[in-house]
Amino acid sequence: MGFEPLNPDFEARTRDSFARQGIMATLGATLSRVEPGLVEIVLPFRPELAQQHGFFHAGVTATIGDSAGGYAAFTLFPAEATVLTVEYKINLLAPADGERLRALATVFKPGRTLTVCDVAVHVEKEGRERPCAKLLQTLMRLDGRPDGPAAA
Amino acid sequence: MGFEPLNPDFEARTRDSFARQGIMATLGATLSRVEPGLVEIVLPFRPELAQQHGFFHAGVTATIGDSAGGYAAFTLFPAEATVLTVEYKINLLAPADGERLRALATVFKPGRTLTVCDVAVHVEKEGRERPCAKLLQTLMRLDGRPDGPAAA
Amino acid sequence: MGFEPLNPDFEARTRDSFARQGIMATLGATLSRVEPGLVEIVLPFRPELAQQHGFFHAGVTATIGDSAGGYAAFTLFPAEATVLTVEYKINLLAPADGERLRALATVFKPGRTLTVCDVAVHVEKEGRERPCAKLLQTLMRLDGRPDGPAAA
Amino acid sequence: MGFEPLNPDFEARTRDSFARQGIMATLGATLSRVEPGLVEIVLPFRPELAQQHGFFHAGVTATIGDSAGGYAAFTLFPAEATVLTVEYKINLLAPADGERLRALATVFKPGRTLTVCDVAVHVEKEGRERPCAKLLQTLMRLDGRPDGPAAA
Repeated sequence: MGFEPLNPDFEARTRDSFARQGIMATLGATLSRVEPGLVEIVLPFRPELAQQHGFFHAGVTATIGDSAGGYAAFTLFPAEATVLTVEYKINLLAPADGERLRALATVFKPGRTLTVCDVAVHVEKEGRERPCAKLLQTLMRLDGRPDGPAAA
Repeated sequence: MGFEPLNPDFEARTRDSFARQGIMATLGATLSRVEPGLVEIVLPFRPELAQQHGFFHAGVTATIGDSAGGYAAFTLFPAEATVLTVEYKINLLAPADGERLRALATVFKPGRTLTVCDVAVHVEKEGRERPCAKLLQTLMRLDGRPDGPAAA
Repeated sequence: MGFEPLNPDFEARTRDSFARQGIMATLGATLSRVEPGLVEIVLPFRPELAQQHGFFHAGVTATIGDSAGGYAAFTLFPAEATVLTVEYKINLLAPADGERLRALATVFKPGRTLTVCDVAVHVEKEGRERPCAKLLQTLMRLDGRPDGPAAA
Repeated sequence: MGFEPLNPDFEARTRDSFARQGIMATLGATLSRVEPGLVEIVLPFRPELAQQHGFFHAGVTATIGDSAGGYAAFTLFPAEATVLTVEYKINLLAPADGERLRALATVFKPGRTLTVCDVAVHVEKEGRERPCAKLLQTLMRLDGRPDGPAAA
């Protein structure tokens, strides 16, 4: 992709913002990759994250997919800006049955005001991954606000 | 709207399925209305549900919105069927800053295989409600499966 | 809904912009209602608008739905602003089999930068209407540009 | 991707169905690639396809994107099945200002009932292409119907 970050400190800023998101600790999610225009979040399974069949709840899948996209956009922002999710669409492709979720978000179209991200969520079971969700997401850059993602 | 439920026992079935969704208890969500083609879920605020600014996290908003829509479709299904979320789009309209979320889902178009629901989520602050999210959602009916929502 | 237009001349401005959209004349669409936050477009059937089964092509349904939403947002803008469709989701609910399409768009959430609209498209056959599509759409206001919808 | 078509005759069937879509001739669109799980449609610019600024109208962009996705799904169907667009979301990324549109659709997740496609639309201007739209689309397979896409 070859995105040029506006803020050389983008990785530290993204990791710092992620660390302040209480919900990520509650879920047990971690930030596995932070690159210009790309963020990956992984989440091990626990029964507290399940729906009634013992799979990851779709709300959990959506939450880490949304945050991965928000932070992917955020890596390309200037230092004094924050990110807001305008909207996303999520297709739930298969039951999220497995030991681990991995949400990989990439910026498809950066913009001064709006950024569009593409997010794929895979579920890993017995060492094999398969796609379980896909998001197409619109993010908004809010300048003059030093904080992290507002809606993520 | 005047939907005719196929299963006269739809309310008990919906409440029973909801009660088995561990995530709803984890969040603290309750089912406030169950009518043919209409379901409402309410959720009081707790810091554990917040993002970094102290508002409801968007993932929480999406989770109860998705479940409300899934159950609204479910009220119109026959007894031996379950529901799966195919996809939804959510617009986050305003920060979910308040004491309580209320997701109201109505069936817009029922169908033998696919049902389309419209969901509005409001946030209440100091006695005043305002819309904070809107979903347009596609659900699938799976016959011959007695259980509750699989993806909700 | 009780929206207060910023521009008292909103109706003339909307009708004027619509008249300059060549595609609307090509399709044969007309603007049947223009109110603050609400626009309705109607379109009679012609074989040139059909897909292979003789129904309105989904692209035609989407085109008038998108324009109705764009103009509904536009009615609430100040005089020197134009509108751009950021994105929409459309559910195709039933075959658009009939003599006339009617797209009714209402502003669900106005905003200084982004506006969210809800659009329902009905098809009329032998005097009876039924819903054939529903859109949830995000529009952007671009200030300092006197022209009509850029993407509609 | 390595999709295995169920129908060895998929290309002829797809081209035949496309040829019966009157709207494609009206627009001047042609089918440039038909592979298992992948379809590309190209469309040269004409003033009749424009909105008021002289760019491709967004409805035209959506129409070829929707059809490309519908046919990409269709290439993987058995001989006696047709395809219906359930829904799609489209992000309009940039004005479609140029001489030619190219919609490239790939199947992201095939399924017995539902298929999810990813569609990118590029606009070419003076020999240089850039993305102008992206769709995430859900298609439904209807068995026992020999015809082409019903909603495309």
